[in-house]
Amino acid sequence: MSTTDTALTSFIDIASDSDFSIHNLPYGIFSDTTDGKRRAGVAIGEQVLDLSVIEAEGLLNLEGGSYFDQPTLNAFIDSGRNNWTQARNTIQSLLSSDNDTLRDNADLQKKALFKQTDVTMHLPVQVPGFTDFYSSKEHATNVGTMFRDPNNALLPNWTEMPVGYNGRASTVIVTGTDIVRPSGQLKPNADERPVFSACKRLDFELETAFVVGKGNNIGQPIAVDDAFAHIFGMVLLNDWSARDIQKWEYVPLGPFNAKTFASEVSPWIVTMDALAPFKTSCPTQEPKPLAYLNEKDTDNSFDINLSVELLPENAESATVVCETNFKYMYWSMAQQLTHHTITGCKVEVGDMMGSGTISGSTPDSYGSMLEIAWNATKPVTLKGGETRSFIEDGDTVIMKGYSEKNGIRVGFGEVRGKVLPAINFDFDK
Amino acid sequence: MSTTDTALTSFIDIASDSDFSIHNLPYGIFSDTTDGKRRAGVAIGEQVLDLSVIEAEGLLNLEGGSYFDQPTLNAFIDSGRNNWTQARNTIQSLLSSDNDTLRDNADLQKKALFKQTDVTMHLPVQVPGFTDFYSSKEHATNVGTMFRDPNNALLPNWTEMPVGYNGRASTVIVTGTDIVRPSGQLKPNADERPVFSACKRLDFELETAFVVGKGNNIGQPIAVDDAFAHIFGMVLLNDWSARDIQKWEYVPLGPFNAKTFASEVSPWIVTMDALAPFKTSCPTQEPKPLAYLNEKDTDNSFDINLSVELLPENAESATVVCETNFKYMYWSMAQQLTHHTITGCKVEVGDMMGSGTISGSTPDSYGSMLEIAWNATKPVTLKGGETRSFIEDGDTVIMKGYSEKNGIRVGFGEVRGKVLPAINFDFDK
Repeated sequence: MSTTDTALTSFIDIASDSDFSIHNLPYGIFSDTTDGKRRAGVAIGEQVLDLSVIEAEGLLNLEGGSYFDQPTLNAFIDSGRNNWTQARNTIQSLLSSDNDTLRDNADLQKKALFKQTDVTMHLPVQVPGFTDFYSSKEHATNVGTMFRDPNNALLPNWTEMPVGYNGRASTVIVTGTDIVRPSGQLKPNADERPVFSACKRLDFELETAFVVGKGNNIGQPIAVDDAFAHIFGMVLLNDWSARDIQKWEYVPLGPFNAKTFASEVSPWIVTMDALAPFKTSCPTQEPKPLAYLNEKDTDNSFDINLSVELLPENAESATVVCETNFKYMYWSMAQQLTHHTITGCKVEVGDMMGSGTISGSTPDSYGSMLEIAWNATKPVTLKGGETRSFIEDGDTVIMKGYSEKNGIRVGFGEVRGKVLPAINFDFDK
Repeated sequence: MSTTDTALTSFIDIASDSDFSIHNLPYGIFSDTTDGKRRAGVAIGEQVLDLSVIEAEGLLNLEGGSYFDQPTLNAFIDSGRNNWTQARNTIQSLLSSDNDTLRDNADLQKKALFKQTDVTMHLPVQVPGFTDFYSSKEHATNVGTMFRDPNNALLPNWTEMPVGYNGRASTVIVTGTDIVRPSGQLKPNADERPVFSACKRLDFELETAFVVGKGNNIGQPIAVDDAFAHIFGMVLLNDWSARDIQKWEYVPLGPFNAKTFASEVSPWIVTMDALAPFKTSCPTQEPKPLAYLNEKDTDNSFDINLSVELLPENAESATVVCETNFKYMYWSMAQQLTHHTITGCKVEVGDMMGSGTISGSTPDSYGSMLEIAWNATKPVTLKGGETRSFIEDGDTVIMKGYSEKNGIRVGFGEVRGKVLPAINFDFDK
């Protein structure tokens, strides 16, 4: 059964614009009560198929044991590609119109299918390491223009390597987690000392992240033509950023406090197998990368539509503030992963690696408020008339993503986060 | 029984210059064969006391379960301060001259005591997060002078906050692990493109790291006067660095490949309880830190002697290339931890936080070859006549540390790493 077989249908009722077609089958971790037992599921239409039930019923038998009655997907992912393939094929078959196993078993359906609106989603993997790249040329150029020097916006190393930095795995959180506005050091006046304050330039960053499916040993880099096979799937990532804290702290060792309060991801890992039909090329890389980054396969990117919506506290509806596409990313995920390991760094199953903010070439495709409102010089007017240069308390930021081709739609759902007011610190002076 | 009771002696024969006196009792993870079962032990003189045996014999009963027949110390550390105190008191008593329980039980000694030379040491904790600070004013000034601008060597944020960055937990390794010389992008000529090459400026960084003993919740910073109580203990850290890779890659997001191939630690976690007698003050902080970093307790540093030795492949003996002291660090560990969490970052039990290179004010107290040989302009002459500006293949770097006062010595042992030649990459051009 091919994942690109457009005739493939499910017995489950799936809207034509659903992100979760039978061609998708993304993996997540859910519980049916907020504090309930966590186990693995697959999104299908508006429902979740409980894989722990399917496995317990003997309908999904993978090599090496059982994997889905677990609070994270790490063990399943770590079990390897044969199991990824077998699980996908088995689940696709079970959900297809022409298979009566689940279709005609009302009791099993009752046990194994949940409405997505009735369940709580959790982080899909335990994340050993979180890395953030900086691979959109447009974003790097825009930030360089505003933060440094318009005449030398793109630093010389940028076109030679996928620049990135290590983030903080402990603050990777799942959609729906509220964000407390961070407080820290700002330096509003060049001639005065910094102050301690709530962040005044809170921003989102529209990103995707890939999930490492196969690690390496320390001291043994992953060759660029092997790297793609080390990737299990992708999620949406809102890499929340405190621009004013960042501007003051980031020289010379990079962003720290400005980035470590919330890196928020969508709950469903869309597999590279599901995304395969949407392969496309990265932009032309000029100069040609050094040999260690030179991929044979130029079909190394994906056509994924991405958007950001902003929903103020009492607004009637959200306003789309950005529409862009993953395919604008200059460096491929394989190049990122190879570069990450080139000096011998070990990567592990469950590691998440952010793309960096994904900006297109026009203001309506910029992936952060910093760029959209151009350093607060061009505030955005929302539906209802409110304006925004950065994110305010009570605002909800919603990111969505999907691929679509020949009637097949494979989507990510959303990552959604609401900003709460800062802590009222009361220091003993 | 007080840890500062100088009359306290052990029935075990301990040399007066041993790092592992009865006042120390550092925790580690060992196995008696290379691939054998990992369990917790305490170093005493030249021996290891197997805590899993002591616990199984009913001689060490802690609240909440058993903790030492485990491959990491995380569960013990996570069990809290009451257990830390009770374990220390119980072990100290068991090893003391006036307690006959172990002293007079030859069978138990045979089961529970191993020679350190007969066991293999492992990473003492599973490390969820690794952070590296940059808290030596002398080091930051030296590097700023060489890498940027001698007239503005110390950047303006440096005296306002403990600058740091997130490292890579997956490449924290234990003493004795060989280091493969990393390869990556260098830019030897300003007017030409970078090249892929083995690192030519491989360096050590003399650091300590503290181990987090108690975490926080995301969004809830740790107050500076509470922070010290969140620290379980300390280790020595050689934060291996590829200076030529670092110089080309680090703008604007900080060090990445240059620092993620090996962060090597000593195997014994020396507890803050053992280090308590050696408290001292950080250097005067001017300007006075912002309120969130302003510690009430000025007894916030430790008098720890540190040294680095270099041992070339065929040399008869090692040469001491650096002698310095932890007390020179400008920012305290409590300030580092508070700053780390101020925007809401979550820290976890087992996190390691590096001090940054510890340099004193004179060339013989600089904590890296970059500084000691002043950017290769003043090569160091070793015993036997060889010279070094950076670390060469076959070299072993050995770092040691200890505190001593009123006849009490508490030491770290050593972190030792040998450099192997780079991988011979063979790219399909």
